[in-house]
Amino acid sequence: MGTLFLVPTPLDFGTSETMPLEAVLPAATWQRAAGLTHWITENAKSTRAFLNRVGALTPLAAPLAQQHLVELPRAVHKKGDHLGEFDARALLAPAVEGHDMGLVSEAGMPAIADPGASVVRAAHVLGLRVVPLVGPISLMLALAASGLNGQHFAFVGYLPQETLARAQRLQALEQTAQRTGQTQLWIETPYRNQAHWESLLLTLRPQTLLLRASGLTLPDAQVRCQSVAQWRAQKESHPPLDAPTVFCLGVAQLASAPRGR
Amino acid sequence: MGTLFLVPTPLDFGTSETMPLEAVLPAATWQRAAGLTHWITENAKSTRAFLNRVGALTPLAAPLAQQHLVELPRAVHKKGDHLGEFDARALLAPAVEGHDMGLVSEAGMPAIADPGASVVRAAHVLGLRVVPLVGPISLMLALAASGLNGQHFAFVGYLPQETLARAQRLQALEQTAQRTGQTQLWIETPYRNQAHWESLLLTLRPQTLLLRASGLTLPDAQVRCQSVAQWRAQKESHPPLDAPTVFCLGVAQLASAPRGR
Repeated sequence: MGTLFLVPTPLDFGTSETMPLEAVLPAATWQRAAGLTHWITENAKSTRAFLNRVGALTPLAAPLAQQHLVELPRAVHKKGDHLGEFDARALLAPAVEGHDMGLVSEAGMPAIADPGASVVRAAHVLGLRVVPLVGPISLMLALAASGLNGQHFAFVGYLPQETLARAQRLQALEQTAQRTGQTQLWIETPYRNQAHWESLLLTLRPQTLLLRASGLTLPDAQVRCQSVAQWRAQKESHPPLDAPTVFCLGVAQLASAPRGR
Repeated sequence: MGTLFLVPTPLDFGTSETMPLEAVLPAATWQRAAGLTHWITENAKSTRAFLNRVGALTPLAAPLAQQHLVELPRAVHKKGDHLGEFDARALLAPAVEGHDMGLVSEAGMPAIADPGASVVRAAHVLGLRVVPLVGPISLMLALAASGLNGQHFAFVGYLPQETLARAQRLQALEQTAQRTGQTQLWIETPYRNQAHWESLLLTLRPQTLLLRASGLTLPDAQVRCQSVAQWRAQKESHPPLDAPTVFCLGVAQLASAPRGR
């Protein structure tokens, strides 16, 4: 039986001409990717672009035209495959026949805040070996860079879009952080960043610590964690509308900056 | 002002002679590490060993004897610095004076399931730029490899050591996963792995899915997610007593393996 490799990709969605692949992926990751010929992917086009970048570093086991790429069904993207609603065993037939396979999403680690969990679940059910490779995971880069509690945290996905429901959810997250010390992480679709940000500053308590991390690993990364009161004092500061952004909120005793900074 | 770089290290605790550093760290990470001369570390000895490995890849900006390493106080390890109880601003004096600094733990990403959050918190309070670098993060390698819900998860740290308290906590985690679909992650000290494992198999419900991931990124990695009933049927299967292990529990609809596998 083949092995299922979880292959992380750069966080630039293929848009960065300036960032070499080997700057953000360890050699074991891109070398392994170069050796694979069978893929399960969120998006075949972006995976071909990724394989092109890999091929520029080291020869691919098969030319692009001969790589076998299967996309996860659209329904999996929409409904989510995170609770195993989708039975992905059929996609793993090549692995059952002995081929190593790669699972890949559009950016970052498959199956974390991205499709792919159903494929990994199916691999375990089929008895395949599962090997996660090292690469960028925006949620954890953001968490580490927040200075908030990294011993106890929760990722809650996307918040509700409807204004009142979102405010209620934010207040519930804030109360959980205050009561238990658990850091709360979530993400938003880039084009909604501005409305989302305004709602955060409107809803959260002044003393709550709020991290905004955009463009992680990229040259123009913005990473800042300060109190909601401090964010409010910088009204011009909006998150970029074209960069994936991670948000965290939490509490800490060393909470305030000295005046004048 | 200098920048605080969060520098991840390999998960082998320096013990693996066979794994080259560049296999698990991207070039941007070890190149940046080679350029730093001021460090805040969980353990100076292991950081010197890490810098030795970096120096074998590319020249260090200063020889080991001239590197400035400051250890986090023991009290921070014991009490935890995750809620900012420790004011780490004094440790960042070199950064305030213009030196770039590195924050590093014994293995993996500082400030995630490891000391360091207080230093990052202090950096934000001082207005320093914080840049997280890419490297292995065992919690997320385990989560991705679990096939459990990666859109909604919580890391809860260590479980209680006392038998009854641990069983109660496990049941509470299991109920949360059942009720909300939230995957639950935790870790244990390697030498306690066996007692811990027995208590998991004793306490959890047969249908709960349980991941055990040991030695991630290493040649002898063990990664397996199956139902508690399936684990019970393999009584001889104990986690290694010398490898850091991540545990996850959760639910999925595609829950059972075909008989005979």
